[in-house]
Amino acid sequence: MLSPSLEDYLEETYRFSQLPGPVRVTDISKKLKVSLPSVTKALGRLREKKYINYEPYGEITLTEQGTRLGSFLVERNQLLQEFLMLICANCDTAAEAEAMEHYLSGETIKAIQKLVKFLKNYPEPYNEYLEYIQQLTDEHLLEL
Amino acid sequence: MLSPSLEDYLEETYRFSQLPGPVRVTDISKKLKVSLPSVTKALGRLREKKYINYEPYGEITLTEQGTRLGSFLVERNQLLQEFLMLICANCDTAAEAEAMEHYLSGETIKAIQKLVKFLKNYPEPYNEYLEYIQQLTDEHLLEL
Repeated sequence: MLSPSLEDYLEETYRFSQLPGPVRVTDISKKLKVSLPSVTKALGRLREKKYINYEPYGEITLTEQGTRLGSFLVERNQLLQEFLMLICANCDTAAEAEAMEHYLSGETIKAIQKLVKFLKNYPEPYNEYLEYIQQLTDEHLLEL
Repeated sequence: MLSPSLEDYLEETYRFSQLPGPVRVTDISKKLKVSLPSVTKALGRLREKKYINYEPYGEITLTEQGTRLGSFLVERNQLLQEFLMLICANCDTAAEAEAMEHYLSGETIKAIQKLVKFLKNYPEPYNEYLEYIQQLTDEHLLEL
Protein backbone atom coordinates (compact mmCIF):
# COMPACT_ATOMS: atom_id res chain seq x y z
CA MET A 1 0.00 0.00 0.00
CA LEU A 2 1.29 3.44 -0.94
CA SER A 3 0.39 6.56 1.01
CA PRO A 4 -1.98 8.99 -0.77
CA SER A 5 0.98 11.25 -1.42
CA LEU A 6 3.14 8.52 -2.99
CA GLU A 7 0.15 7.40 -5.04
CA ASP A 8 0.00 10.91 -6.48
CA TYR A 9 3.70 10.83 -7.35
CA LEU A 10 3.38 7.46 -9.04
CA GLU A 11 0.24 8.57 -10.88
CA GLU A 12 2.00 11.63 -12.32
CA THR A 13 5.18 9.69 -13.09
CA TYR A 14 3.08 7.21 -15.02
CA ARG A 15 1.31 10.04 -16.89
CA PHE A 16 4.61 11.59 -17.94
CA SER A 17 6.01 8.17 -18.89
CA GLN A 18 3.20 7.89 -21.44
CA LEU A 19 4.35 11.09 -23.19
CA PRO A 20 7.27 11.32 -25.61
CA GLY A 21 10.62 12.17 -24.02
CA PRO A 22 12.09 11.36 -20.64
CA VAL A 23 10.23 11.78 -17.35
CA ARG A 24 11.62 14.89 -15.66
CA VAL A 25 11.74 15.71 -11.94
CA THR A 26 10.98 19.33 -12.82
CA ASP A 27 7.80 18.33 -14.69
CA ILE A 28 6.53 16.31 -11.72
CA SER A 29 7.46 19.15 -9.40
CA LYS A 30 5.49 21.67 -11.47
CA LYS A 31 2.50 19.37 -11.93
CA LEU A 32 2.16 18.50 -8.24
CA LYS A 33 3.19 22.00 -7.12
CA VAL A 34 5.88 20.69 -4.79
CA SER A 35 9.60 21.43 -4.44
CA LEU A 36 12.28 19.54 -6.37
CA PRO A 37 13.72 17.96 -3.18
CA SER A 38 10.23 16.67 -2.30
CA VAL A 39 9.98 15.00 -5.71
CA THR A 40 13.47 13.50 -5.37
CA LYS A 41 12.60 12.15 -1.93
CA ALA A 42 9.31 10.66 -3.13
CA LEU A 43 10.98 9.08 -6.16
CA GLY A 44 13.55 7.55 -3.80
CA ARG A 45 10.76 5.94 -1.84
CA LEU A 46 9.03 4.69 -4.99
CA ARG A 47 12.34 3.18 -6.06
CA GLU A 48 12.76 1.48 -2.65
CA LYS A 49 9.31 -0.03 -3.11
CA LYS A 50 10.30 -1.16 -6.60
CA TYR A 51 7.77 0.92 -8.52
CA ILE A 52 10.35 2.87 -10.47
CA ASN A 53 13.98 2.72 -11.56
CA TYR A 54 15.70 5.96 -10.76
CA GLU A 55 19.17 7.25 -9.95
CA PRO A 56 19.54 10.95 -9.12
CA TYR A 57 20.24 12.80 -12.42
CA GLY A 58 19.49 9.56 -14.28
CA GLU A 59 16.50 8.41 -16.27
CA ILE A 60 13.22 7.67 -14.49
CA THR A 61 11.42 4.58 -15.75
CA LEU A 62 8.59 2.52 -14.28
CA THR A 63 9.05 -1.11 -13.30
CA GLU A 64 6.44 -3.63 -14.35
CA GLN A 65 4.56 -3.30 -11.08
CA GLY A 66 4.99 0.49 -11.26
CA THR A 67 3.39 0.53 -14.69
CA ARG A 68 0.53 -1.67 -13.49
CA LEU A 69 -0.19 0.43 -10.42
CA GLY A 70 0.40 3.72 -12.26
CA SER A 71 -2.06 2.75 -14.97
CA PHE A 72 -4.61 1.70 -12.35
CA LEU A 73 -4.22 5.03 -10.53
CA VAL A 74 -4.74 7.03 -13.71
CA GLU A 75 -7.77 4.97 -14.71
CA ARG A 76 -9.22 5.23 -11.21
CA ASN A 77 -8.87 8.99 -11.39
CA GLN A 78 -10.56 9.13 -14.81
CA LEU A 79 -13.32 6.84 -13.61
CA LEU A 80 -14.10 9.06 -10.62
CA GLN A 81 -14.11 12.18 -12.78
CA GLU A 82 -16.48 10.44 -15.18
CA PHE A 83 -18.71 9.34 -12.29
CA LEU A 84 -18.87 12.89 -10.94
CA MET A 85 -19.68 14.29 -14.36
CA LEU A 86 -22.37 11.68 -15.02
CA ILE A 87 -24.17 12.31 -11.77
CA CYS A 88 -23.75 16.03 -12.49
CA ALA A 89 -21.92 16.89 -9.32
CA ASN A 90 -21.57 20.62 -9.58
CA CYS A 91 -17.92 20.57 -8.48
CA ASP A 92 -14.39 20.83 -9.79
CA THR A 93 -14.35 17.18 -10.89
CA ALA A 94 -10.56 17.00 -11.20
CA ALA A 95 -9.97 18.32 -7.69
CA GLU A 96 -12.78 16.22 -6.25
CA ALA A 97 -11.61 12.98 -7.88
CA GLU A 98 -8.14 13.77 -6.59
CA ALA A 99 -9.46 14.25 -3.06
CA MET A 100 -11.59 11.11 -2.88
CA GLU A 101 -9.57 8.62 -4.94
CA HIS A 102 -7.24 7.53 -2.16
CA TYR A 103 -10.01 6.68 0.24
CA LEU A 104 -12.13 4.25 -1.74
CA SER A 105 -11.70 0.50 -1.50
CA GLY A 106 -11.16 -1.60 -4.60
CA GLU A 107 -14.66 -3.01 -4.21
CA THR A 108 -16.23 0.43 -4.21
CA ILE A 109 -14.18 1.43 -7.24
CA LYS A 110 -15.56 -1.65 -9.01
CA ALA A 111 -19.12 -0.81 -8.02
CA ILE A 112 -18.74 2.79 -9.22
CA GLN A 113 -17.30 1.44 -12.45
CA LYS A 114 -20.37 -0.73 -12.98
CA LEU A 115 -22.61 2.24 -12.30
CA VAL A 116 -20.69 4.41 -14.78
CA LYS A 117 -20.93 1.70 -17.44
CA PHE A 118 -24.65 1.40 -16.81
CA LEU A 119 -25.29 5.14 -17.01
CA LYS A 120 -23.28 5.35 -20.24
CA ASN A 121 -24.76 2.29 -21.93
CA TYR A 122 -28.39 2.65 -20.92
CA PRO A 123 -29.51 6.04 -22.23
CA GLU A 124 -33.13 5.57 -21.21
CA PRO A 125 -32.67 5.24 -17.44
CA TYR A 126 -29.94 7.86 -17.61
CA ASN A 127 -32.22 10.35 -19.31
CA GLU A 128 -34.86 9.55 -16.73
CA TYR A 129 -32.27 10.37 -14.08
CA LEU A 130 -31.36 13.67 -15.74
CA GLU A 131 -35.03 14.64 -15.94
CA TYR A 132 -35.57 13.63 -12.33
CA ILE A 133 -32.72 15.72 -10.95
CA GLN A 134 -33.76 18.74 -13.00
CA GLN A 135 -37.05 18.97 -11.17
CA LEU A 136 -35.47 18.21 -7.80
CA THR A 137 -35.00 21.29 -5.68
CA ASP A 138 -32.46 21.80 -2.92
CA GLU A 139 -35.31 21.73 -0.45
CA HIS A 140 -34.99 18.09 0.46
CA LEU A 141 -31.26 17.86 0.14
CA LEU A 142 -28.70 17.80 2.90
CA GLU A 143 -27.32 21.23 3.42
CA LEU A 144 -25.53 23.11 6.08
CA MET B 1 -13.96 23.62 8.69
CA LEU B 2 -13.26 20.81 11.12
CA SER B 3 -10.50 18.27 10.59
CA PRO B 4 -11.67 14.72 9.69
CA SER B 5 -10.83 13.66 13.23
CA LEU B 6 -12.84 16.44 14.88
CA GLU B 7 -15.71 15.72 12.51
CA ASP B 8 -15.73 12.17 13.84
CA TYR B 9 -15.80 13.38 17.44
CA LEU B 10 -18.67 15.76 16.72
CA GLU B 11 -20.55 13.08 14.77
CA GLU B 12 -20.35 10.65 17.69
CA THR B 13 -21.13 13.33 20.27
CA TYR B 14 -24.24 14.17 18.27
CA ARG B 15 -25.22 10.49 18.06
CA PHE B 16 -24.94 10.08 21.84
CA SER B 17 -26.79 13.35 22.41
CA GLN B 18 -29.78 11.82 20.63
CA LEU B 19 -29.92 8.94 23.11
CA PRO B 20 -31.46 9.13 26.59
CA GLY B 21 -29.03 10.08 29.36
CA PRO B 22 -25.98 12.32 29.39
CA VAL B 23 -23.20 12.18 26.77
CA ARG B 24 -20.22 10.46 28.41
CA VAL B 25 -16.54 10.82 27.57
CA THR B 26 -16.13 7.08 28.19
CA ASP B 27 -18.82 6.23 25.63
CA ILE B 28 -17.16 8.37 22.95
CA SER B 29 -13.80 6.88 23.86
CA LYS B 30 -15.13 3.32 23.46
CA LYS B 31 -17.00 4.09 20.24
CA LEU B 32 -14.04 5.75 18.52
CA LYS B 33 -11.51 3.40 20.11
CA VAL B 34 -9.36 6.22 21.43
CA SER B 35 -8.03 7.09 24.89
CA LEU B 36 -9.96 9.21 27.39
CA PRO B 37 -7.37 12.04 27.22
CA SER B 38 -7.76 12.12 23.42
CA VAL B 39 -11.52 12.54 23.79
CA THR B 40 -11.07 15.26 26.42
CA LYS B 41 -8.63 17.09 24.15
CA ALA B 42 -10.93 16.84 21.13
CA LEU B 43 -13.93 18.00 23.15
CA GLY B 44 -11.86 20.97 24.30
CA ARG B 45 -11.25 21.90 20.69
CA LEU B 46 -14.91 21.46 19.76
CA ARG B 47 -15.77 23.74 22.67
CA GLU B 48 -13.26 26.36 21.50
CA LYS B 49 -14.92 26.26 18.10
CA LYS B 50 -18.30 26.65 19.78
CA TYR B 51 -19.78 23.33 18.68
CA ILE B 52 -20.28 22.04 22.20
CA ASN B 53 -20.61 23.23 25.78
CA TYR B 54 -18.34 21.25 28.01
CA GLU B 55 -16.47 21.64 31.27
CA PRO B 56 -14.23 18.77 32.38
CA TYR B 57 -16.36 16.47 34.59
CA GLY B 58 -19.41 18.50 33.56
CA GLU B 59 -22.24 17.83 31.17
CA ILE B 60 -21.56 17.73 27.43
CA THR B 61 -24.20 19.43 25.30
CA LEU B 62 -24.21 20.61 21.71
CA THR B 63 -24.60 24.26 20.77
CA GLU B 64 -27.02 25.20 18.02
CA GLN B 65 -24.29 25.13 15.37
CA GLY B 66 -22.95 21.88 16.88
CA THR B 67 -26.37 20.29 16.56
CA ARG B 68 -26.69 21.49 12.97
CA LEU B 69 -23.25 20.23 11.93
CA GLY B 70 -23.57 17.01 13.97
CA SER B 71 -26.88 16.20 12.35
CA PHE B 72 -25.41 16.90 8.90
CA LEU B 73 -22.43 14.63 9.62
CA VAL B 74 -24.67 11.76 10.74
CA GLU B 75 -26.94 12.16 7.72
CA ARG B 76 -23.96 12.37 5.36
CA ASN B 77 -22.65 9.13 6.81
CA GLN B 78 -26.03 7.42 6.41
CA LEU B 79 -26.36 8.74 2.87
CA LEU B 80 -22.98 7.33 1.85
CA GLN B 81 -23.77 3.97 3.41
CA GLU B 82 -27.06 3.93 1.54
CA PHE B 83 -25.31 4.88 -1.71
CA LEU B 84 -22.78 2.08 -1.28
CA MET B 85 -25.51 -0.45 -0.55
CA LEU B 86 -27.63 0.67 -3.49
CA ILE B 87 -24.80 0.34 -5.99
CA CYS B 88 -23.99 -2.99 -4.33
CA ALA B 89 -20.43 -2.15 -3.42
CA ASN B 90 -19.20 -5.39 -1.95
CA CYS B 91 -17.50 -3.67 0.97
CA ASP B 92 -17.86 -2.92 4.66
CA THR B 93 -20.22 -0.02 4.00
CA ALA B 94 -19.81 1.47 7.49
CA ALA B 95 -16.01 1.54 7.27
CA GLU B 96 -16.06 2.74 3.68
CA ALA B 97 -18.52 5.57 4.35
CA GLU B 98 -16.37 6.55 7.30
CA ALA B 99 -13.25 6.63 5.12
CA MET B 100 -14.70 8.65 2.26
CA GLU B 101 -17.08 11.03 4.03
CA HIS B 102 -14.51 13.65 4.96
CA TYR B 103 -13.21 14.05 1.43
CA LEU B 104 -16.34 14.84 -0.53
CA SER B 105 -17.45 18.38 -1.29
CA GLY B 106 -20.93 19.53 -0.40
CA GLU B 107 -21.80 19.59 -4.11
CA THR B 108 -20.82 15.95 -4.56
CA ILE B 109 -22.78 14.98 -1.46
CA LYS B 110 -25.81 16.68 -3.01
CA ALA B 111 -25.31 14.89 -6.32
CA ILE B 112 -24.98 11.52 -4.57
CA GLN B 113 -28.11 12.32 -2.63
CA LYS B 114 -30.03 12.96 -5.84
CA LEU B 115 -28.75 9.67 -7.26
CA VAL B 116 -29.79 7.79 -4.12
CA LYS B 117 -33.25 9.35 -4.25
CA PHE B 118 -33.56 8.38 -7.91
CA LEU B 119 -32.46 4.79 -7.37
CA LYS B 120 -34.90 4.43 -4.47
CA ASN B 121 -37.87 6.12 -6.13
CA TYR B 122 -37.55 4.72 -9.65
CA PRO B 123 -37.69 0.94 -9.29
CA GLU B 124 -37.67 0.27 -13.02
CA PRO B 125 -34.28 1.79 -13.89
CA TYR B 126 -32.90 0.47 -10.62
CA ASN B 127 -33.97 -3.08 -11.44
CA GLU B 128 -32.45 -2.63 -14.87
CA TYR B 129 -29.23 -1.63 -13.15
CA LEU B 130 -29.33 -4.67 -10.86
CA GLU B 131 -29.87 -6.96 -13.83
CA TYR B 132 -27.08 -5.27 -15.76
CA ILE B 133 -24.47 -5.64 -13.03
CA GLN B 134 -25.39 -9.27 -12.46
CA GLN B 135 -24.32 -10.18 -15.96
CA LEU B 136 -21.23 -7.96 -15.79
CA THR B 137 -18.06 -9.92 -15.18
CA ASP B 138 -14.87 -8.63 -13.61
CA GLU B 139 -13.22 -8.93 -16.99
CA HIS B 140 -13.71 -5.32 -18.02
CA LEU B 141 -13.36 -3.82 -14.61
CA LEU B 142 -10.38 -2.03 -13.20
CA GLU B 143 -8.34 -4.40 -11.15
CA LEU B 144 -4.87 -4.62 -9.86
